[in-house]
Amino acid sequence: MNQVLDLVGIFVFALSGALVGVRRRLDAVGMAVLAAVTALGGGILRDLILNVPPAAFSSVGYVVTPLAAAAIVFFWHPQVERVMPVVNVFDAAGLGLFCAVGTEKAMDYGLSPLHAALLGVTTAVGGGVLRDILAGQTPTLLYDRQLYAVPAMLGSGVMAVLYVMDLHGWPATLAAAVLAFGLRIAAVRFRFQAPLARGVTAEE
Amino acid sequence: MNQVLDLVGIFVFALSGALVGVRRRLDAVGMAVLAAVTALGGGILRDLILNVPPAAFSSVGYVVTPLAAAAIVFFWHPQVERVMPVVNVFDAAGLGLFCAVGTEKAMDYGLSPLHAALLGVTTAVGGGVLRDILAGQTPTLLYDRQLYAVPAMLGSGVMAVLYVMDLHGWPATLAAAVLAFGLRIAAVRFRFQAPLARGVTAEE
Amino acid sequence: MNQVLDLVGIFVFALSGALVGVRRRLDAVGMAVLAAVTALGGGILRDLILNVPPAAFSSVGYVVTPLAAAAIVFFWHPQVERVMPVVNVFDAAGLGLFCAVGTEKAMDYGLSPLHAALLGVTTAVGGGVLRDILAGQTPTLLYDRQLYAVPAMLGSGVMAVLYVMDLHGWPATLAAAVLAFGLRIAAVRFRFQAPLARGVTAEE
Repeated sequence: MNQVLDLVGIFVFALSGALVGVRRRLDAVGMAVLAAVTALGGGILRDLILNVPPAAFSSVGYVVTPLAAAAIVFFWHPQVERVMPVVNVFDAAGLGLFCAVGTEKAMDYGLSPLHAALLGVTTAVGGGVLRDILAGQTPTLLYDRQLYAVPAMLGSGVMAVLYVMDLHGWPATLAAAVLAFGLRIAAVRFRFQAPLARGVTAEE
Repeated sequence: MNQVLDLVGIFVFALSGALVGVRRRLDAVGMAVLAAVTALGGGILRDLILNVPPAAFSSVGYVVTPLAAAAIVFFWHPQVERVMPVVNVFDAAGLGLFCAVGTEKAMDYGLSPLHAALLGVTTAVGGGVLRDILAGQTPTLLYDRQLYAVPAMLGSGVMAVLYVMDLHGWPATLAAAVLAFGLRIAAVRFRFQAPLARGVTAEE
Repeated sequence: MNQVLDLVGIFVFALSGALVGVRRRLDAVGMAVLAAVTALGGGILRDLILNVPPAAFSSVGYVVTPLAAAAIVFFWHPQVERVMPVVNVFDAAGLGLFCAVGTEKAMDYGLSPLHAALLGVTTAVGGGVLRDILAGQTPTLLYDRQLYAVPAMLGSGVMAVLYVMDLHGWPATLAAAVLAFGLRIAAVRFRFQAPLARGVTAEE
């Protein structure tokens, strides 16, 4: 079940990566690279830090899914753009799933709850950061005015607490993911913003 | 023999990295860093993913070779620029060698042919991507209009198939490398281009 | 004792990362990310290459220290900016400590002196490079005109030699760190510059 949740997250993250590729007029190779990096980058970072072979390099689904997403965007990007509000909802779902699954895997490998949650956040936001670095734009993570990392922190923290209380398996994962998803959606809807340093005003 | 092929690839990749440094008017340190990152980055990424200590941090040749290339460019960059068409041929040779050697090493460590080929491509293009990110330019990999990743995919795929057929050792490595090299040279010569997403036109 | 030296280095590097965040008008999340990446990035790179679990993901102090530095900058950045000359001295101290500690750890794990010194330099400059890439500026390492990497090379080299002579433990670490620190301070004070490639002039 966690495997299925993971593949869904990979698929929607790959869609967002491939769309950045289309907008920057990259070719098929660039689109496939951005799709794969966005979808798999966070998990690869997580596995490198856990010192285990990255899941992306041992499962066929992890390779085929981002390529399928890139192909869909390649042929039908106007249609995908039109349903972007839906894709953004999926992206929030991917964020929630990745932070919950990442935290759980880190706890399985014996990290402390604090570090597991940190690694969960890394899993959730790492792929997007790598996508932005490759595409030459400042990572949206750093201008997190509409809360992207904060929902991941909430989901990762809740997952770590549930795990410590011996609640794991997919219902716990899903609960943590839904919390992160909900905060992310609410943040976009109600324009929650992370604060700027004291005395600093936003760029006009 | 594979060790020698590897060092040749490292040398030509380091030349290309150091030349980017000169063109951006970086100093000796910046040139040495770009040379080393271009030459060693792909292999280090590969070894991190394989979860083995990076070869670059256990062999003296892997450290001395990029520094020698950087020194040559430091003193004789006008001459090196003049023979750039030759250097581009060598860069294609490095691409071929790295994708073949990387795929073979990944198969040695038990990855599936699909994942081994993927890691071979990563080995071949990773150093150039890191060079471009450090130097602040969009990775040429993403604007792969003249086929850079595609030849690496061909070479890696052929190497993986040969390996499955129990054909490995340096003649197989060289055969896969020559194929990738040939496609890369032909792509530059005949302007093969990767397709853009449907309905997207190239920037004028 | 080495642990204390390490945390001091992490704190001052995190201050410099958070200050870059304020100058670029990033929000609290962006500041915390830049602080953590600057402070921990070099050590994480070192531990990934040594193939050991990153210290940052097993010690509480390594997570709390950068966050505390980010909070200080968040509330009192004008005051921190005013003492920037002092912070730059601390940054030089962090550079010295990180190159010495990194080299020593690499020797502990059995790398050759040459590779241990290379990894020590990576530890010292890696966080700053990641900070600059995330913040979208060309890594200062590449425009090393006022010697940033060179002092780290000196400190790492001396540490490796001391270690080979069986002199390790914190007095040796401190001696190597002080040497690197001294050269860095002198380089800023007396404007030592790394040379440009033959025939290249600095950009006006």
